[in-house]
Amino acid sequence: MIFASDNWAGASDKVIAALAAAARDGGRAYGNDDLTRGLTQRFSDLFEREVAVFLVGTGTAANTLGIANFARPGGVVFCHRHAHINVDEAGASEFFGGAKLVGIEGRDGKVKAEALAQAIERYPEGNVHYGRPVVASVSEITELGATYSPAEVSAIATVARQRGLAVHMDGARFAGAVASLGVRPCEVTWKAGVDVLSFGGTKGGCLAAEAVVFFNPADSRDFGFARQRAGHGFSKAWFIAAQFDAWLDHGHWLDLARHANAMGARLARAIQASGTARLALVPAANEVFAILPKILDARLKAAGAMFHPWSVETLPPEERPGPDEAFVRLITSFQTRAEDVDRFAALLTG
Amino acid sequence: MIFASDNWAGASDKVIAALAAAARDGGRAYGNDDLTRGLTQRFSDLFEREVAVFLVGTGTAANTLGIANFARPGGVVFCHRHAHINVDEAGASEFFGGAKLVGIEGRDGKVKAEALAQAIERYPEGNVHYGRPVVASVSEITELGATYSPAEVSAIATVARQRGLAVHMDGARFAGAVASLGVRPCEVTWKAGVDVLSFGGTKGGCLAAEAVVFFNPADSRDFGFARQRAGHGFSKAWFIAAQFDAWLDHGHWLDLARHANAMGARLARAIQASGTARLALVPAANEVFAILPKILDARLKAAGAMFHPWSVETLPPEERPGPDEAFVRLITSFQTRAEDVDRFAALLTG
Amino acid sequence: MIFASDNWAGASDKVIAALAAAARDGGRAYGNDDLTRGLTQRFSDLFEREVAVFLVGTGTAANTLGIANFARPGGVVFCHRHAHINVDEAGASEFFGGAKLVGIEGRDGKVKAEALAQAIERYPEGNVHYGRPVVASVSEITELGATYSPAEVSAIATVARQRGLAVHMDGARFAGAVASLGVRPCEVTWKAGVDVLSFGGTKGGCLAAEAVVFFNPADSRDFGFARQRAGHGFSKAWFIAAQFDAWLDHGHWLDLARHANAMGARLARAIQASGTARLALVPAANEVFAILPKILDARLKAAGAMFHPWSVETLPPEERPGPDEAFVRLITSFQTRAEDVDRFAALLTG
Amino acid sequence: MIFASDNWAGASDKVIAALAAAARDGGRAYGNDDLTRGLTQRFSDLFEREVAVFLVGTGTAANTLGIANFARPGGVVFCHRHAHINVDEAGASEFFGGAKLVGIEGRDGKVKAEALAQAIERYPEGNVHYGRPVVASVSEITELGATYSPAEVSAIATVARQRGLAVHMDGARFAGAVASLGVRPCEVTWKAGVDVLSFGGTKGGCLAAEAVVFFNPADSRDFGFARQRAGHGFSKAWFIAAQFDAWLDHGHWLDLARHANAMGARLARAIQASGTARLALVPAANEVFAILPKILDARLKAAGAMFHPWSVETLPPEERPGPDEAFVRLITSFQTRAEDVDRFAALLTG
Repeated sequence: MIFASDNWAGASDKVIAALAAAARDGGRAYGNDDLTRGLTQRFSDLFEREVAVFLVGTGTAANTLGIANFARPGGVVFCHRHAHINVDEAGASEFFGGAKLVGIEGRDGKVKAEALAQAIERYPEGNVHYGRPVVASVSEITELGATYSPAEVSAIATVARQRGLAVHMDGARFAGAVASLGVRPCEVTWKAGVDVLSFGGTKGGCLAAEAVVFFNPADSRDFGFARQRAGHGFSKAWFIAAQFDAWLDHGHWLDLARHANAMGARLARAIQASGTARLALVPAANEVFAILPKILDARLKAAGAMFHPWSVETLPPEERPGPDEAFVRLITSFQTRAEDVDRFAALLTG
Repeated sequence: MIFASDNWAGASDKVIAALAAAARDGGRAYGNDDLTRGLTQRFSDLFEREVAVFLVGTGTAANTLGIANFARPGGVVFCHRHAHINVDEAGASEFFGGAKLVGIEGRDGKVKAEALAQAIERYPEGNVHYGRPVVASVSEITELGATYSPAEVSAIATVARQRGLAVHMDGARFAGAVASLGVRPCEVTWKAGVDVLSFGGTKGGCLAAEAVVFFNPADSRDFGFARQRAGHGFSKAWFIAAQFDAWLDHGHWLDLARHANAMGARLARAIQASGTARLALVPAANEVFAILPKILDARLKAAGAMFHPWSVETLPPEERPGPDEAFVRLITSFQTRAEDVDRFAALLTG
Repeated sequence: MIFASDNWAGASDKVIAALAAAARDGGRAYGNDDLTRGLTQRFSDLFEREVAVFLVGTGTAANTLGIANFARPGGVVFCHRHAHINVDEAGASEFFGGAKLVGIEGRDGKVKAEALAQAIERYPEGNVHYGRPVVASVSEITELGATYSPAEVSAIATVARQRGLAVHMDGARFAGAVASLGVRPCEVTWKAGVDVLSFGGTKGGCLAAEAVVFFNPADSRDFGFARQRAGHGFSKAWFIAAQFDAWLDHGHWLDLARHANAMGARLARAIQASGTARLALVPAANEVFAILPKILDARLKAAGAMFHPWSVETLPPEERPGPDEAFVRLITSFQTRAEDVDRFAALLTG
Repeated sequence: MIFASDNWAGASDKVIAALAAAARDGGRAYGNDDLTRGLTQRFSDLFEREVAVFLVGTGTAANTLGIANFARPGGVVFCHRHAHINVDEAGASEFFGGAKLVGIEGRDGKVKAEALAQAIERYPEGNVHYGRPVVASVSEITELGATYSPAEVSAIATVARQRGLAVHMDGARFAGAVASLGVRPCEVTWKAGVDVLSFGGTKGGCLAAEAVVFFNPADSRDFGFARQRAGHGFSKAWFIAAQFDAWLDHGHWLDLARHANAMGARLARAIQASGTARLALVPAANEVFAILPKILDARLKAAGAMFHPWSVETLPPEERPGPDEAFVRLITSFQTRAEDVDRFAALLTG
């Protein structure tokens, strides 16, 4: 009953097999191998547009290099107050681009276009003291398990565009979002105004495979240097390419995401039906947030369930747990088995 | 006939198998899994001393984070003029630690203790304009394929110690050096005065496995944060740990290195015996540098041999190739087959 | 009627005279002149403790270098949400130290010890994702013109100490605070737990004179290098030292501050008595925040009064101006004349 | 007999008077005062072209911000091996722009166009490992007291242009160069291909006055933010503007430079005529490099002459001092008196 995180999962069999096959032969170093070169076409097909794609090994690398690509002196980056880039990356974006991150409030981990507009307004043009807006970043799915619809992303991008900000999307769980929204990948990215996407494979069934996707390839002319300087240019780059290749093949990535989402929904239904625990919000994909009695929380853990407590500050004050309640995050993955969810469900009511 | 680089090779079967096995199950994220935790003991056993070990994905990450760990404002880092950190890492060390790299001349890619002493002397204590020495870095094996003996490392470390510099060793090909020198790993590292080692598995038979080894664990108290901030903290850290685990098991790493070295020696002998090409220096491990007629260089390539031209500036002026000659680097790996070397040898005299 | 800022003022006659005298002769470069060297003793006398003092030219330089001195990878700096370092320095602290700034709410621009404790609690020891607390910064006087009492600073420092944070004080208007509080400088600094003070002379009667004062000189061993590397080491350092020397002489700095404060109080009384405008808070020194009808705001400006609108977000929601009101900041200085204040007062009721 | 450096001098009477006058009244903060605003026109007139000008307080700030303005990830900056930016600024350029500095050999502190071309050639287009050339920097006058002619600057700029490098000129002693060359300022700057000039007033008769001059104002759109973020935006910016204003007025700056140069020439003639000491090179302006017996060196110091030893590495091997000789730098300034030079001359032969 592991619901700690989707990065506790292993890798899918297809991904492992592809990696093993690639590893037998090797290839040209530093991304000049056929697998890595071929990914540009694969990603371009997937997004229905010519893109530039750069492989890195971690989500933090993808986010921070993608954002730093648009940084300028005095640059201000807007994101949700609880965004991963703001609270979970040890100050990477401040370090790499010297950016100031400004956290915006919003329920379900979502930045609203109006809230972004208000935040940007505090930075009048040319004020060298305050700094200047350079990037707006959204997480698809959010840190509270919600999705942005294409229209919502588009509204944010429209606000950003008016002041010349680039739009970054943290897609650590992009697969789950696409599966949940039932959209084509282009609809929630470049067609909605996204400039650069951190497209995560790691949480969705790879070992370590993240791609920085630029929807305007010209934006990326400095990126190869920036990646190398940051130590994120892998010599045997095919070890990442092979993972993506297998993962994206024949919709495998979406199949895996759909399973994870289905397990999330199954878990959510169990919680709603339990009478003992309740959902903090209805999950869009594989992240389930629940409030439950502390006594139940303890019993679940004692029974071997693994999951993390979550910060109550991510909830509106009126929805926070009471003194005897715990607020927890439960994450399913492509490896989650229905029987584990059901066993957990049984414990809820047991 | 691939002699382009040892990072063109794949991974060893044992490494692949271990990785595949680990990938089936996954584990706790961010290095809290059993495989990663177990590596501290394994590395401590290997080095016969309690060490702190941090996994990263690239040699540049290992080098630059290891060096930045000892950086301070105005810090000056000494290395060979042609060291990888100075010429092949896109300014990573300047970027991460704000360090100034000072390149030292020396034949065979080696820094001599006296040359280091002279270079340090230019920085009198407390001169805030010049900056201050913080790290001396050596490559074992060097960028020209030579090794430092324990005594040579020790002489350098003694000079460094006198002014409080930390000693960093770039061990991208550390396995080959240990195999070539026939020493215990401790003898050429901490017993000789090395503080931090970039221990590379990638070139020696892994896919992407580099370890930053601190011989005084207390030195590393900031490293976990620095690694995370740089995006080099992997969530599925076991994917690196599994590689190291298999690679280090039962001396597999040294077996692989010995094969690569033997192929290097076979290649060197062929060159010496050819009458057409000559060695620029006698190789210590798997890097072979040769001078050959341009016409032969072209013929070898036409026949399918892959290898890189090398900068003549790495040679003393009097040993540089003539106008009709090429200076090339040939690298063997754990995957190099004797028949490929022999085929290359035949082409030399053909 | 200039109430725009105290950095619109010139310099005091004594400061000008001292500067002119020093400029006639010059002296040893880079702080090795007698004037600069003598300041260590002068500051030590002033603070009743042996201190290390470093001169720089701007408040941003003092703040950011002082804070960066205590930065470490993944470092988090706590300050008031509206602190100068957080909103008016173009991301300097993020740039120099790679720090993440975390803004804390609190009325009158003040950080409360309990709020700081809560903010720190979100960063459990050793969590490399969140980062780690390194510095707590307070502004004396605050950006809303309030002062911290020695007891309040002490309470903050006690909280900071428990987790090993250094305490920084932004004393751009430290003179005004000391004059207002009626304390000895030591009481509100090191005796209350402050580690490093940005001691500003510029706003108080100098041209460009800021000192970074370390109360534990050992903390500053890297600072000379950091200052030089940042371009803040002046060759004719005596041009700053001469200003401080005259400014600190015979309590001149406090005389100037008392005048500015008296003008601030005179202005505040006029506002309170006006019946047309009201104080947002009772000023402690020379910063006066007022709410007044927009029509009056326009009339004052038309009559030649100069002052800045201020962000209503710095006020509690229930105290913010109505739709027809403006929120403004008025600052007096050592050069402010009583007749200008009185003329302004007359306009308020006119 | 102070020949230690021109930054040991005070300020000229006119500069002091202008500064004192400005300081009496103050003005709008952060460069919005009339004096600072007026400088754009003054500098544009001086350079016979519309320029953008930004005031800072130190030469290191001017150099490093000017260079960082053109930095990009993996950026390589070329300069003379002994350039101030490479050896005397504590790694400022590495820190601010993450740049790698590559020092080029050349006699008299001069970079030759051919040497620059060779150095650039080592960086093939698009090689992300080596990095990419972004800036070529020259010092006018050089660290060995020589000048570049307009033709020499032009040759360097032509080489730089071919690969898209910006050209930076460190003009800490630009006044002396212009006076010595007898050219209009435009001839040795933008007409010769310079993009950005660090124009130093400090060494030539100001207290702390440095200007970053962009000859293509569009290049500077990020500079205001970069300056503020670095703490180099002065609130009472008029204190620098007033210095420049007086210094540039009616050719005062060139008068002062001509005096310093004349004193340098007088000193050089004395050395040549002495029979005891000899010139290392014929000085172009106010920097005189001499080789003299150690016994004479000691006698001069004992008699009160102040000057610095200099690194023998700045000389070609065959011209270096013998074992009983010292290599010294003597600098004259606008304050140097002929009688001091003559007294020094008498000591040489005495």
